[in-house]
Amino acid sequence: MTQPTLPPLAFDPFDPVALTQALIRCPSVTPAEGGALALLDAVLSTEGYAVHRPVFSEPGMPPIENLYARIGTDGPVLVIAGHTDVVPPGDVARWTRDPFSGEIADGVLYGRGACDMKGGLAAMISAALRFRRENPEAPGSIAFLVTGDEEGPAVNGTVKLLHWAHERGERFDHCLLGEPTNPAAMSDMIKIGRRGSLTGKLTVNGKQGHVGYPHLADNPIRGMVRLLAALDATPLDAGTEHFDASNLEVTTLDVGNPATNVIPAQAQAVFNIRFNDIWTPETLAAEIERRLHEAAGNTVRYEISFQPTNAVAFLTRPGPFVTMVSDAVEAVTRKRPALSTTGGTSDARFIKSYCPVVEYGVVGQTMHQVDECVAVADLLALEQITHRLMADYFAAVQHA
Amino acid sequence: MTQPTLPPLAFDPFDPVALTQALIRCPSVTPAEGGALALLDAVLSTEGYAVHRPVFSEPGMPPIENLYARIGTDGPVLVIAGHTDVVPPGDVARWTRDPFSGEIADGVLYGRGACDMKGGLAAMISAALRFRRENPEAPGSIAFLVTGDEEGPAVNGTVKLLHWAHERGERFDHCLLGEPTNPAAMSDMIKIGRRGSLTGKLTVNGKQGHVGYPHLADNPIRGMVRLLAALDATPLDAGTEHFDASNLEVTTLDVGNPATNVIPAQAQAVFNIRFNDIWTPETLAAEIERRLHEAAGNTVRYEISFQPTNAVAFLTRPGPFVTMVSDAVEAVTRKRPALSTTGGTSDARFIKSYCPVVEYGVVGQTMHQVDECVAVADLLALEQITHRLMADYFAAVQHA
Ligand SMILES: [Zn+2]
Ligand SMILES: [Zn+2]
Repeated sequence: MTQPTLPPLAFDPFDPVALTQALIRCPSVTPAEGGALALLDAVLSTEGYAVHRPVFSEPGMPPIENLYARIGTDGPVLVIAGHTDVVPPGDVARWTRDPFSGEIADGVLYGRGACDMKGGLAAMISAALRFRRENPEAPGSIAFLVTGDEEGPAVNGTVKLLHWAHERGERFDHCLLGEPTNPAAMSDMIKIGRRGSLTGKLTVNGKQGHVGYPHLADNPIRGMVRLLAALDATPLDAGTEHFDASNLEVTTLDVGNPATNVIPAQAQAVFNIRFNDIWTPETLAAEIERRLHEAAGNTVRYEISFQPTNAVAFLTRPGPFVTMVSDAVEAVTRKRPALSTTGGTSDARFIKSYCPVVEYGVVGQTMHQVDECVAVADLLALEQITHRLMADYFAAVQHA
Repeated sequence: MTQPTLPPLAFDPFDPVALTQALIRCPSVTPAEGGALALLDAVLSTEGYAVHRPVFSEPGMPPIENLYARIGTDGPVLVIAGHTDVVPPGDVARWTRDPFSGEIADGVLYGRGACDMKGGLAAMISAALRFRRENPEAPGSIAFLVTGDEEGPAVNGTVKLLHWAHERGERFDHCLLGEPTNPAAMSDMIKIGRRGSLTGKLTVNGKQGHVGYPHLADNPIRGMVRLLAALDATPLDAGTEHFDASNLEVTTLDVGNPATNVIPAQAQAVFNIRFNDIWTPETLAAEIERRLHEAAGNTVRYEISFQPTNAVAFLTRPGPFVTMVSDAVEAVTRKRPALSTTGGTSDARFIKSYCPVVEYGVVGQTMHQVDECVAVADLLALEQITHRLMADYFAAVQHA
């Protein structure tokens, strides 16, 4: 896997800004590798990491490249997880900068992936390189778990990469996932959990007819309104120690009947629930089915189905590792970050089955948007924070 | 208008079956006249009617031919109203007979318009011809008000024809509209009223966002469900002496959001209300607006608009004319018909502003369907019923 002779790099990988720019210049829109993983391979190999590039595929899906790299042979193993794939730039004409040039203006670095999450990954790699160069005899191991399929279906990415590593005997002690967790400033937020996600499709069947003869028809919209009102009538829960209340949102509701004198035959709704650690997808689906059954009585004929999901809720309870990450953020930013479980899902839902995982990265305000960007200062701060975390983490081992 | 010399007709207009066949062979799919009104012009002119063929139009719409014919100069004036236009045959391959041939098999006459309403109109014309031939000195007048725009937008038809006649000084005492009112047998049903129709469009505006951050969004579906539940919570009324309760049906409900992780920005619903004589379109719209306003409170942002409508409710209260029609039906069928106000709208909503109107015609089971048909026996019965009505109606004048 590692190349026998390595060409010199055209930039300094110890500089998180230069490494971010180099990554942004790789057009790695999912599922394209775009040169991003090859670049990381070269960087990490040069610094002595054992690098692997497993490719995973499924019938009918494009193969996906991934990367696993490790330096050190003993434990504990601190894993830095992330992804090099990015969402498409969208309408390039709306960007004020080339989305794949990594241009810097007024202290801000622009480009697709700047904050989600080439910038975060680059800063953490730079920090790891510096930490190991400064501490070549440090105990334990640092590993990188990088996928090219986080923004896509997430089928041939982190899930399989974790399984692949586990099969090889790799064991992880703690993981830092470098997603952009901060709403506005680097001192804002560490994510110690994420809610799960469950999507359901509800169909109400009626009987088509003429509005002038409603007794000969059965309007499914009436039943749909009743069922949706019932789903919304009582909160799913009141939240838990670390989580907000679970929340259901109906995302679409469609009949598609153009005739104003016709009662339609069917109505369909799709809803998504972001749920906390009270529920599993199975117990939550059962609760939804119970509510629908009760509201429908004998009069509403409906069908409910749930999309298969691996988006379970996860929580890494506050403890030494979370404290260590918070300490590192506070040491650099002079402000203690909040511990949050809000927002969407992330690959942490897969990692949590292997080791405790927390998420921390740059400011995510512009993720997936036009003119995505990251402050140069934030990249430098993240490099320092990660370096501090590694120093504390491996020092704790030495002192133990 | 009336031709100076009239060619002999190729069929006997005193025979309602032959006249129905002749009309069906005119392909008068709205807005085409198809020769149907020219045929009636020839029939009625031959028998001494003064016939007029006013054409009405609007910018951007095809001109529509109509027919007004009258025999007699004094009152009372009994008007027979109807239409010669028909809906398209649809998929002709699904018909077992040519929809424009008027084929008879096993005592049933097939063709587009057989029941709606060339058959009814033909039977009434045959009856009128026979009545006047048998009673050339009968008092009063018989008039025919026939449009070619009932199945279309109904803009250049009965509304304008009534206005045109009124402007000419024509005054009507009673009207029989020959729509197919019978569900199954000729003795079933006279319509003495129709509910009105009001269509509304409801839009709820929210704020788009990610399902993971519901506090930053405002789901319009939640508000829509609340508003629709409020519209359905209390009946509009309990019905009246002659009418069923007014009834609201939501006919469509659409969001069109394909993304299960996105809270949509807007939801739209269309509803249609069939309302009784408690309401006008204006008072009903005001009641709907009141209910929406109350249910929305300060939290649901919505817009409501109503389609312009001339489909007001009408009722011809039971009295001597209704009794006379019922008597004629009972005299021929040996069973007294029900007086009904059910079903869709008809041109009676326009006629009711000029004179009392009741509706009676053949069996409507196959109207607008493939293999539309009418029983030959029903055409003969309707000819007799109409003849009996005319005899009673004008005898009452003589005896008064
Ligand atoms: Zn990401
Ligand atoms: Zn009709």
